[in-house]
Amino acid sequence: MKFYSRKWIKPEDLNAHNTLFGGRLLAWIDEDAAIYAMCQCGSKSMVTKFVSEINFISSAQHGDVVEIGFDTVEFGTTSITMTCLARNKNTKQNILSIERIVFVKLDENGRPSPHGKTHKKTDS
Amino acid sequence: MKFYSRKWIKPEDLNAHNTLFGGRLLAWIDEDAAIYAMCQCGSKSMVTKFVSEINFISSAQHGDVVEIGFDTVEFGTTSITMTCLARNKNTKQNILSIERIVFVKLDENGRPSPHGKTHKKTDS
Amino acid sequence: MKFYSRKWIKPEDLNAHNTLFGGRLLAWIDEDAAIYAMCQCGSKSMVTKFVSEINFISSAQHGDVVEIGFDTVEFGTTSITMTCLARNKNTKQNILSIERIVFVKLDENGRPSPHGKTHKKTDS
Amino acid sequence: MKFYSRKWIKPEDLNAHNTLFGGRLLAWIDEDAAIYAMCQCGSKSMVTKFVSEINFISSAQHGDVVEIGFDTVEFGTTSITMTCLARNKNTKQNILSIERIVFVKLDENGRPSPHGKTHKKTDS
Amino acid sequence: MKFYSRKWIKPEDLNAHNTLFGGRLLAWIDEDAAIYAMCQCGSKSMVTKFVSEINFISSAQHGDVVEIGFDTVEFGTTSITMTCLARNKNTKQNILSIERIVFVKLDENGRPSPHGKTHKKTDS
Amino acid sequence: MKFYSRKWIKPEDLNAHNTLFGGRLLAWIDEDAAIYAMCQCGSKSMVTKFVSEINFISSAQHGDVVEIGFDTVEFGTTSITMTCLARNKNTKQNILSIERIVFVKLDENGRPSPHGKTHKKTDS
Repeated sequence: MKFYSRKWIKPEDLNAHNTLFGGRLLAWIDEDAAIYAMCQCGSKSMVTKFVSEINFISSAQHGDVVEIGFDTVEFGTTSITMTCLARNKNTKQNILSIERIVFVKLDENGRPSPHGKTHKKTDS
Repeated sequence: MKFYSRKWIKPEDLNAHNTLFGGRLLAWIDEDAAIYAMCQCGSKSMVTKFVSEINFISSAQHGDVVEIGFDTVEFGTTSITMTCLARNKNTKQNILSIERIVFVKLDENGRPSPHGKTHKKTDS
Repeated sequence: MKFYSRKWIKPEDLNAHNTLFGGRLLAWIDEDAAIYAMCQCGSKSMVTKFVSEINFISSAQHGDVVEIGFDTVEFGTTSITMTCLARNKNTKQNILSIERIVFVKLDENGRPSPHGKTHKKTDS
Repeated sequence: MKFYSRKWIKPEDLNAHNTLFGGRLLAWIDEDAAIYAMCQCGSKSMVTKFVSEINFISSAQHGDVVEIGFDTVEFGTTSITMTCLARNKNTKQNILSIERIVFVKLDENGRPSPHGKTHKKTDS
Repeated sequence: MKFYSRKWIKPEDLNAHNTLFGGRLLAWIDEDAAIYAMCQCGSKSMVTKFVSEINFISSAQHGDVVEIGFDTVEFGTTSITMTCLARNKNTKQNILSIERIVFVKLDENGRPSPHGKTHKKTDS
Repeated sequence: MKFYSRKWIKPEDLNAHNTLFGGRLLAWIDEDAAIYAMCQCGSKSMVTKFVSEINFISSAQHGDVVEIGFDTVEFGTTSITMTCLARNKNTKQNILSIERIVFVKLDENGRPSPHGKTHKKTDS
């Protein structure tokens, strides 16, 4: 798995328990997943369709660096299925993993539209 | 199901397709779920432990109002399991539903800690 | 009075005195008032026209939950007048109350436009 | 009246009617009022106590520059009363004015505390 | 040099060392420089072209007030060159200075376009 | 040069000319530079000391993906000097490059402190 971004945990990313707020991590992952899907499918019109269950394995603290990685699981005609892992950059401890995130390419009328890709671009 | 909050979709909540950005909605839901869990369990030290699979049924547009509802599924000794529904306030069309979101109460050392609740507070 | 939203006070919501920043609370209230006005009047084109005097009765701390409630005072031809109360969800202590907030419906040219409502929608 | 800050209206500052969102303007004003109060009273522990009624006279558009001015009305033993005007930097059209905003200096226990000032600092 | 804005350092403006985050200060300066350029050149279509080297002389703490000043160095046919200073409002200690920031006026096709100004407006 | 992060340009990242706001890009770069410096030097207490001149070569549009890369130029006893490039992920067109960004490690009293590194970590 390749890690595509690194986030630095700041005060606005913490919950009342002073650990990384789960919702902030989910928003980071969804944005990075959208970028990954756009780069793989060569289209800006990718939207989130499905996220498989999410297990929060450990948390992280103020000042920690989180790295977020993705890999392609499969291409459908109009969709891409990815897997995702977020972990502590320093300790390498997994924070959460998501087995499947599905994005779909939409046309101008909001209907699924073929992206024409069948193989992962290794440079994206 | 009771709807606890309403969000108004602004430009910063949109994806490049100009519909509601999935990650923003997940962040809203996680924050509201945390508030619901804190109110039900009478503790501020509640953190996200698990989110079951998420199906994005429809989207929403700039200027729409989204309402987010929760209900308690069950209380564990140290946890609470909720169900969640987000829908368009005006059209009542479902945007996404999540069958189970689990929050856990932690003590000062970050270990699960009993919350002592067994029944839903109907005024929370 | 019905409470329509709940906010969880995070570090970015605090002033230098480490209590809830007044401006943040006013922004929350204005946004929720806009949603309430839009739902009551069935129009997205509602803008703030007037806010009566605001008394900050008490403050709130990091991690507290604030609930914000509204009620309709009266409908004008093109306007709606609401009353607002923000209080600490847990202690029920009032943080501030505003006797009258007036929103006006505008047409495409920015002129007041009739909304056709005369009675409060109890489900909004 | 001296204008202490200028804000440039960006997409995240707009309401659904695509004019300046009232709540955003109130948050800007409260923050700038706090800075003005801190500079005049020589203390960081200033909190909002009262805001007199607010009349939204006109609005502003995406890309406009808003300038916000303050003047001291009077010093109390523990408080400062200011007047505020927000206007369009280019057209000089008033957007809103507030006759009185009151901030109070608090001690470490959250009780009003004398600030020792009786005259406006002209360089603040 | 005239100081055009004052920023109050809040938790979200801090780095992991708990001092003012350099990137936040650069974003504040670029926004204020854009406003200054727009006011001087009488056009909204001003974009950043060049920033000379930046020396971080000192930092600032949570709750401090930073003031940011600009002066015009020269007008080109399509550009404006400014100088900038950011300092602690209270101690007057310089935080950083930038000798030259250049903004350019663009036409609708994104090409440099004459702004017609040759002298500083002293009231902007 | 290795590209460590990818940003997706959203409405709140645009200037009034509807291209990427220079200040937003500088804030992204400073944050990513801080993460790079922390990872290379194995310390969270890294602060921005110097940024060499910045040439904005081209801009980018709403929905574009920007990738930001860094490389180590040299290690000082208490500092690290990096070079940075931001480019359009799709077109590979350079947006800006910065020859030298210097971060310094500080001790608890805010004084420069040796980091003990002399060689680039290739996995960071």
